[in-house]
Amino acid sequence: MPFAIHPFLETKRDGGVHSAEQIVLFVRALTAGDISRSQVAAWLAFAYVQGLNDAEKVALTHAMVDSGDRLDWQGLDGPFVDKHSTGGVGDKVSLILAPLLVLLGKRVPMVSGRGLGHTGGTLDKLEAIPGFRTDLPVSQLRGVLDDVGFFMNGQTGEVAPADRLLYALRNEICTVPSVALITASILSKKVAEGIDALVLDVKVGSGAFMKDLDQARALATSLVRTGQGCGVDTRALITDMSQPLGLTVGNALEVRESVEALKGGGPQDLFDLTVALAGDPRAADILRSGAAYDCFCRMVEAHGGDVGALERYESMAMGARITELVADRSGVVQQLDAMDIAMAAFGLGAGRERADEPIHPGVGLVLRKKRGDAVRVGEVLAEIHHDQRGLEQAQALTRRAYAIGEGSPQQVPLVIETVG
Amino acid sequence: MPFAIHPFLETKRDGGVHSAEQIVLFVRALTAGDISRSQVAAWLAFAYVQGLNDAEKVALTHAMVDSGDRLDWQGLDGPFVDKHSTGGVGDKVSLILAPLLVLLGKRVPMVSGRGLGHTGGTLDKLEAIPGFRTDLPVSQLRGVLDDVGFFMNGQTGEVAPADRLLYALRNEICTVPSVALITASILSKKVAEGIDALVLDVKVGSGAFMKDLDQARALATSLVRTGQGCGVDTRALITDMSQPLGLTVGNALEVRESVEALKGGGPQDLFDLTVALAGDPRAADILRSGAAYDCFCRMVEAHGGDVGALERYESMAMGARITELVADRSGVVQQLDAMDIAMAAFGLGAGRERADEPIHPGVGLVLRKKRGDAVRVGEVLAEIHHDQRGLEQAQALTRRAYAIGEGSPQQVPLVIETVG
Repeated sequence: MPFAIHPFLETKRDGGVHSAEQIVLFVRALTAGDISRSQVAAWLAFAYVQGLNDAEKVALTHAMVDSGDRLDWQGLDGPFVDKHSTGGVGDKVSLILAPLLVLLGKRVPMVSGRGLGHTGGTLDKLEAIPGFRTDLPVSQLRGVLDDVGFFMNGQTGEVAPADRLLYALRNEICTVPSVALITASILSKKVAEGIDALVLDVKVGSGAFMKDLDQARALATSLVRTGQGCGVDTRALITDMSQPLGLTVGNALEVRESVEALKGGGPQDLFDLTVALAGDPRAADILRSGAAYDCFCRMVEAHGGDVGALERYESMAMGARITELVADRSGVVQQLDAMDIAMAAFGLGAGRERADEPIHPGVGLVLRKKRGDAVRVGEVLAEIHHDQRGLEQAQALTRRAYAIGEGSPQQVPLVIETVG
Repeated sequence: MPFAIHPFLETKRDGGVHSAEQIVLFVRALTAGDISRSQVAAWLAFAYVQGLNDAEKVALTHAMVDSGDRLDWQGLDGPFVDKHSTGGVGDKVSLILAPLLVLLGKRVPMVSGRGLGHTGGTLDKLEAIPGFRTDLPVSQLRGVLDDVGFFMNGQTGEVAPADRLLYALRNEICTVPSVALITASILSKKVAEGIDALVLDVKVGSGAFMKDLDQARALATSLVRTGQGCGVDTRALITDMSQPLGLTVGNALEVRESVEALKGGGPQDLFDLTVALAGDPRAADILRSGAAYDCFCRMVEAHGGDVGALERYESMAMGARITELVADRSGVVQQLDAMDIAMAAFGLGAGRERADEPIHPGVGLVLRKKRGDAVRVGEVLAEIHHDQRGLEQAQALTRRAYAIGEGSPQQVPLVIETVG
C-alpha cells in the first residue's frame, strides 16, 4: 500500500482523524527515512495542537512497538505485569513493588531507563549495588523471569526505534508535553515487554512532569484508555509529588531505604504507595512480613549483584561525606519542595543531563523532616551526602525547599485519584 | 539581543502572540541558518493552526522584506503603485492595467513571477513577444520607470530570501494555504518594490486558489489590513474565477487579446475588471480611447521587445495549429469550468510544473462561447491551438468544461466584493 505524506499531514493539520492503516504506514516511512525530518516535525506540531483520539493513540502505540523488537514469554506462566511511573523525586517504589508482585503470583519483566534531568532512573539506583548488571541478554532474562519471577534490566535489542526518532525531534521542536504523544511513547515501550497488565503511577506536583491535577488526570485517563485499547489491562494512580517520596534521594541511599521497606520497615508513604500500586488486599501483609527482601536478593544475585553489599551500606556509598543542615527557625514544615531537593541531589552528582555522564552513587540527601513535622532551631533538617562538588548549592536549595511556619500545613493525600 | 527558539515555538504552539522584536530575530535566525529546518517546520505548523494577528503579520512582512534587497525610487516622482492577483485562468489584466495606471498619473514598478502549476505567469505572457527581456538590471529599470512610467520585470537581486526559505518548507509540509502565511509572502515581495499603494485581485472559484467566498474574503481582509499596517495604501477586489477571464488562455493568445483591449476593444469582462482595479472614474474613458496601447508599446520597446510583432500574431504563435471543438448538443452554456480549461492549456504546453521547463508560447485556447451564450449542435465552442502534444486530453477537458443545458444560468457578478 503506498503512503503519501501530504494527505496524511493535511488530515491532522485540519483536525481530522487518521486511520490505523495510515498511522502504520506513517511510522514505517518514518523508520525507513522515507519522509523528511521537517515533515515529521510538522506532523508532531499538528498532532500536538489537534490531538489524537483513542483509536489513533492505540494505532500509533502498536505501530511504534512493531517498528522494533518485542519480548515474548511464550512457554512461561503469566500473568506478566509491570509498573511505570512518570517520574518523581525519591521514587524507589519499583525496587519494592516488583518482588511484592511476584509474591502475589505475577511475573514482572521490568525494563527500565536511566535518569535524565532531575529524576533518578531505576537502573541508576540498581547500579549502586556492586556488580549489578542491567544489560543481561534476552536469553538470560527469560531464565531469571522463570526462576526468580522478575528481572530489572535495561532495554534489550532495539525497542520502538520509531519512538526514539520521534522523541529526539519532540525535544527539538517543543512538542514533548503532549498527552497523546507521551501516551504512545510510554506505552510502546511497555507493550513491547509482552505484558498482560500494567499499573501506572502518574505523579503530580512540583517534583513531577505534570504540575497540576487536570494535566495529570488527562494523562492518566489517556494512558489507561490507550493501554486497554492495546490489550493490556491498565490502571493508573494519580499520586502526590509535591514533596519527595520516602526520606532519601540519591542512588545508594534509595537502595538502602528500599532494603528497609523490603524487610517490612521504611517510611510510611513509601509503604502505602507500594501497597496501593500492588492493588491487592494481601499486599500490605506480605510487605510487612519481609518476604519480599528474599525475592529481591535472588533477583540481585541473578543480575550479578553483590547481595552482601545490601547490608553494608558503605560499600555502595563510595566514601561520600555527610554535612548536616540545621533549622534556622522553629515551627512546622509547611512544604518540602520536591524540585528543589531534586536539584540539590542533581548538583551533588546523583543525576545526569546527558546519557554518557557518570553519576556518583553515594551522594544525595536524607530528609530528617518532612511536611507536617515540628522542628526546633538548631535541629537537623537534612543530611547532605556529598563528594567534591555541589555542597554549597545543595545547602541553599535544601534550605529553600523547607518552608517552616506556624500551624499544621494542609493535608495532601498520597494517592489522589485512581483511574481505570 | 539573543534569540531562543524554544520559547518562540512554545508561544505559538500555545496560541500566544509574538512581539515584533521576536519575529525579527526569528527571521534573522532563519535566514542565517541558525535554527534547524525541523524547528522552522514546527513554527509554520503552529502558525498555520493558531494563526497570526495583524501586528504579527505586519512584523513578519517587514522582517521578510528586510531579509533581502528592496527597490528605492528616491529622486523619481510618485506615487508608485502596483497590482497583484492571486492567480486566475486567462488573467492578462496586468498587461492592460499597468499602462492605464500610468495614464492616470501613477508610476508602476511591476515585478512579476513566472507561472507554476495551472495559471500562467505575467512574465511568460510577455516573453511570447520576440526579444522581450524580463531580466533588466535595477539601474536600467529606474530609467524605464522614469521614461515610460512603468516596467514589467522579474525579480532583481535577492528579494525576501526568508520568504523563499519558508515557501520551500511550506510546500514540503502542507502549510501553503494559510491566510496569515500567504499574506506575509505576497506582501513582502510587493513592499520590497518600494510602492505607496497596491490593489489586489483576490480570485475566487474553480480556477482560483481560493475555492469559496469565505476563504477569499478572509484573505482579502488580511491582505488589506496587513498592507495598510506596512504603510502601503492597500485595497482588494474579490472577483469571479469560476470561468476564465476574457476569451483566450495561452501566452501569445493572451498578448493578442491584451493588445485588443489596450486599443479600446477586447472582451467586456476583461475591460470591466481592468477598469474596476484601476479605481478611478476616468479609467473607462481612457481605456476606451486606446491611448494605453502606445504606452504599452513604449514599455515593450524599453524591454527589448519587437513592437511590430504585436501586430503580427503569427510571429508570436510559433506555428501552432488550430483544431476546433464543436458542440454535441444545443442549449445555453451553464458553466465553463476554469480549472478544466487551465488543465487543457497546461497539457498543451502553455504552462510548466518546474521552473526550468520550457513552455510553448503559441498553444492554448480561444473560447468562442462563455457562460450564458446560446449554442447549436455543430457550432464551434472553442479553438484549440496546439503543437505535438496534449490535443486529445485538451479536447476531452474542454468538452467537460462546457456544461450546456436549458435556460439562463445563474448570474455571477465579476466583481463580487471590494475590501478596503
